[in-house]
Amino acid sequence: MAWEMLSIIGTIAFAVSGAIVAMEEEYDLFGVYLLGIVTAFGGGAIRNLLIGVPVSALWEQEMMFHIALFAITAVFLFPQDLLKHWNRWGNFFDAIGLSAFAIQGALFAVQLGLPISAIVVAAVLTGSGGGIVRDVLAKRKPLVLKNEIYAVWAVVTGIVIGFGIAVSDLSLYILFVSTTILRVISYLYK
Amino acid sequence: MAWEMLSIIGTIAFAVSGAIVAMEEEYDLFGVYLLGIVTAFGGGAIRNLLIGVPVSALWEQEMMFHIALFAITAVFLFPQDLLKHWNRWGNFFDAIGLSAFAIQGALFAVQLGLPISAIVVAAVLTGSGGGIVRDVLAKRKPLVLKNEIYAVWAVVTGIVIGFGIAVSDLSLYILFVSTTILRVISYLYK
Amino acid sequence: MAWEMLSIIGTIAFAVSGAIVAMEEEYDLFGVYLLGIVTAFGGGAIRNLLIGVPVSALWEQEMMFHIALFAITAVFLFPQDLLKHWNRWGNFFDAIGLSAFAIQGALFAVQLGLPISAIVVAAVLTGSGGGIVRDVLAKRKPLVLKNEIYAVWAVVTGIVIGFGIAVSDLSLYILFVSTTILRVISYLYK
Repeated sequence: MAWEMLSIIGTIAFAVSGAIVAMEEEYDLFGVYLLGIVTAFGGGAIRNLLIGVPVSALWEQEMMFHIALFAITAVFLFPQDLLKHWNRWGNFFDAIGLSAFAIQGALFAVQLGLPISAIVVAAVLTGSGGGIVRDVLAKRKPLVLKNEIYAVWAVVTGIVIGFGIAVSDLSLYILFVSTTILRVISYLYK
Repeated sequence: MAWEMLSIIGTIAFAVSGAIVAMEEEYDLFGVYLLGIVTAFGGGAIRNLLIGVPVSALWEQEMMFHIALFAITAVFLFPQDLLKHWNRWGNFFDAIGLSAFAIQGALFAVQLGLPISAIVVAAVLTGSGGGIVRDVLAKRKPLVLKNEIYAVWAVVTGIVIGFGIAVSDLSLYILFVSTTILRVISYLYK
Repeated sequence: MAWEMLSIIGTIAFAVSGAIVAMEEEYDLFGVYLLGIVTAFGGGAIRNLLIGVPVSALWEQEMMFHIALFAITAVFLFPQDLLKHWNRWGNFFDAIGLSAFAIQGALFAVQLGLPISAIVVAAVLTGSGGGIVRDVLAKRKPLVLKNEIYAVWAVVTGIVIGFGIAVSDLSLYILFVSTTILRVISYLYK
């Protein structure tokens, strides 16, 4: 159950963060949808590759498409004066996507019975894939490399899951929310 | 039958467009082959990932290699004064690759019984993959994001195939040719 | 046996070359680990895709993680005054990764009974993948395209393996060492 929720949350978050980057770069309507979709599915594709699910399985979740398209529409329609700080919102949604996919990557590594070091690497790579796709396509330096504190929270996710501290759905949700908050705090007060 | 033809056409088109970008950037002989090959197979690899065919299946089409190498050689030998307008030719071959792979992506999504929104997304992502690989490697902003009208024709392809308007091989060829022409017209008269 | 050794060598070499690029760009401790890990596993992921091994098989080699993390630590601790010439060392480790993965790509293509042209393309793409991932993430023009002589040695690797000149483990090791040396010489005396 937590697994599906995290998939949905991660996909929406990356769709929104792609759309926000496109608006920062002043793309038109179509460009906003494009970068949103490519970020959401690029992130999902990299996650699937890393956790051994066929990339083409993305297509089987038709609900996901509607959710992603709806989320991008919401970004586009959102009152411009509320969103003077794209930068902050972009980072917020990126943080959500990072947390959601990092947990999935770590859970998959645990399932394979891997050691802590591999679980941590799986969390970092799975979590940062979507943002990397977005930034490379928008010709930006990947956020994960520009701002290294970014990935520290993915490392913490890997450690918490790797040592079996978070196992139940509830504890995974708590981990997800607290990782996102920590990431946002580390951004605001750096 | 149409499927194989579209694979061949798409691969050639991306090989040629990669070689043209390499000549624009004044790479030497070897660089032209390299970017041509990487674009053709990068595009094919992304298509395979998205439609659930193993990427390594690329190697089984040995004819494809000879065709791609031959196409790149043709670009390199082509009289320079005929090709003063790389830009236009580059866009032409890119349009061919986009159409060919967009149709394959849409057909695959139809086969899975997916809804229209997913078919459209599959058409856009499968069609634009090759050009994205080429532009990222040449450190350019991806054409698909720079010039958004680009992907509109992939969306149209998705809709036409999704509503079952083009099914027979003949109608797929007609769709392919008209998408390419519309894309070229939208480029010339923008 | 040679296959496993080449995997280990290639992964270490790309981890180190990623870490060196990160130090050139003056990333902090965390950034050096990140780019090292992403380069090592990005290179391995592209190799796996191209030779038909699931990307998620990367996680099963837990020893590899420890080796990669150890190699990056070594780069970070290495006396700064010994390494005034990052550039040269970066190219050296890149050359090692290129040779190791090019041999694996070529061997895989031979196993499929492919013609010489496909074997050469497999060698070039498999060998250059790791460096491409590293350079794209660091917002550099891929070394393989900037410096075309780079890939000539991967082509030679493909030809030597394709014509059955190197088959035994010993001859593969000799091929690996001589390709690396030729690549380094072509860099030093260009």
